[in-house]
Parts: sequence; C-alpha cells; structure tokens
Amino acid sequence: MNFCSDCGNAVIKKIPEGDNRERHVCVTCEVIHYQNPKVIAGVLPIYGDQILLCKRSIEPRHGFWTLPAGFLENGESSLDGALRECVEEANAHVVNPELYALFDIPQINQVYVFYRAHLAEPVFGPSSESSEVALFSEADIPWSELAFPVVELALDHFLKDRQTGDFLVKHEQIQRPWRSRRNP
Amino acid sequence: MNFCSDCGNAVIKKIPEGDNRERHVCVTCEVIHYQNPKVIAGVLPIYGDQILLCKRSIEPRHGFWTLPAGFLENGESSLDGALRECVEEANAHVVNPELYALFDIPQINQVYVFYRAHLAEPVFGPSSESSEVALFSEADIPWSELAFPVVELALDHFLKDRQTGDFLVKHEQIQRPWRSRRNP
Repeated sequence: MNFCSDCGNAVIKKIPEGDNRERHVCVTCEVIHYQNPKVIAGVLPIYGDQILLCKRSIEPRHGFWTLPAGFLENGESSLDGALRECVEEANAHVVNPELYALFDIPQINQVYVFYRAHLAEPVFGPSSESSEVALFSEADIPWSELAFPVVELALDHFLKDRQTGDFLVKHEQIQRPWRSRRNP
Repeated sequence: MNFCSDCGNAVIKKIPEGDNRERHVCVTCEVIHYQNPKVIAGVLPIYGDQILLCKRSIEPRHGFWTLPAGFLENGESSLDGALRECVEEANAHVVNPELYALFDIPQINQVYVFYRAHLAEPVFGPSSESSEVALFSEADIPWSELAFPVVELALDHFLKDRQTGDFLVKHEQIQRPWRSRRNP
C-alpha cells in the first residue's frame, strides 16, 4: 500500500495513537488503513463413501487436487460462501451442511472454515477453476497430489471421524513449512 | 475506495473478466482491490460459576457489557487474537481455551470466533477499552445491557451447555435487526 484509497495522497507506516501496531496511515486525511486476515470457506462434499475433489486449473497449485473453497465475499455468511464455491468450482449442489473445521494459517493471514455436506445425487463437473471433478474412495485419495495442507487435514480428520461417526468440529493451526501427516 | 492504493490513480467499480462481482479496479495499473469480511476473535472467560464481562468505554456501544473480542490481526491465529483481546480489554490471562462458537454476521461483513477459556485466578481489571471488568453469576448477567447480539448468543449457549457439560461448537448466522432470545 503506497497511497490512500480515500484521498489518493501518500500513506506512511506508523503506529497510530492508542494503537500498538504499525498501520498504513494517510499523511493528508489521516485515515488509518487496517489490513486483516481473510476467511476462506469450503466444503467437504460426500457421496456415499466417496469424497468429491477438484483438480485445480488455476494457480496457485495448478494441477493439484483440492476441496472446493475460496475467499469469503462481503455480504455472505461462511456457509453461503462455502456452498457458492462448491457450485463455482465443482458444479455441485450439496445438502445438510454442518460446520466441520476451522483452520488458522497465521503466516499467510488466512482462516479456513470447512463444512461437511452431502451430494444428494452424483451430479458435478468441471468448471473454469477445475479441469476435473471426481469422487474418490478412501483408498484412491491422491495424498501426494493435494493442493494445500488444509485439504489433507480436512480429509484426514474426516476419514478418522467416519470410523466412529462422531464428527466434532476440528480446530488446528497450520505451521508452514507443513509437515504432512500422510506423506512424511 | 476512490483511489488505487498501489499507484494512486482513480479506481472504478466494474466486474473483472472471469469474475461475477463488482470490484474496485484501478483504471491505470488494473489492480483489482478485493474487499472481504473480517474476523473478530474473542473469549468467553470463566471463573468458577462466573463469567467475565467488560463494560465498553469506547464506541460502538459505549457503556454496554461485552465479552473481550476484537478484530483479528494479520500474522496471528484466531486463538492468539482472542487471547490478546482478553488481555487488552480485560487485563485477564486465561487458560485451556477451546473453540466454542462461529457466528456469521453477513450484513456487516463479520465472522466471530469465540473460545471458552478459564481464569486460573480472579485477576483482571479495567483497560483503555473497558471502564469496568467484572465477574457475573448467571442471575446477575445484565441481559438488557449487552453490547452485541453475539455476546448474548455466546452467553445463552454457554449457560445452557453448562447444565449438561457438553460444549459442542456452536454455529449461527445473525440476522439484523436482532431478535433477542433473552429480551424479547
């Protein structure tokens, strides 16, 4: 950030009065421009004993498999954002969503919120963001080709929970570099 | 937003190619300036059968009681942010935090994350943001003087859960105008 988005004049970094962190502050109109973490909302879509994954056709991690997820937009709830991403990335409509995981990634200023949800029918397909969309049984999950640590983490939790049927909400903080639990 | 924070030239609102929402886009350098919801992290601090609340000495809701909570900062996890706010607003250090609630308020672009946590000792005090900090038994909670719907909601869930000892993570979307459960 170099310029004030309100008045167009220069900003400097300084600690505003009463604050304890450096912010971008306009030298002219004195507006403080805060920068905060972003929420990424996603779905773990289930059909029978299979899980829906999307092969990314965009960067970052082009060609790797992910759960449908994306930046939460102003004006929408984390659930609405998750369901929207599931449609946009996988052309899939899911039902009975339940909050399943909150993953913090402070090093990149992200908070992930995942919902477990179900495909009523095996209807899905590629999109502008996914070259392939497919259902995977546990034995076929491409652990070494997953796009992001949060995807591995969500899948790992889900597959363990499925053995007990007890899907308590998960909460973890992800450290980078990531030490995979599945591909050590 | 009137000006590009990168180059200082004018921005216009338009739907970028491949997008489906209006964004602020710089007419000169073509950077897209996304605006996204903010995370507010907070604590429900418990001491014995009492709950710690803070009387706000700042706007909004000056003079009303709240749980310690505030905007999550870049570089911190939602838990770290919640613990920081508890210190900043209540001068209270808590232990054994557990994720307790995710509340969406899409109308004001906020996602609240609350942790249940415990005061090891009844040590707390006022701050630059709180004129009073106090422990409340259930019978004494100032329901009509709470600062925000999320505070009422978190307390309401907690007091109910305390009867069973089963503190499952809560997830709700808050509609404004808010219809109080405690002050109908």
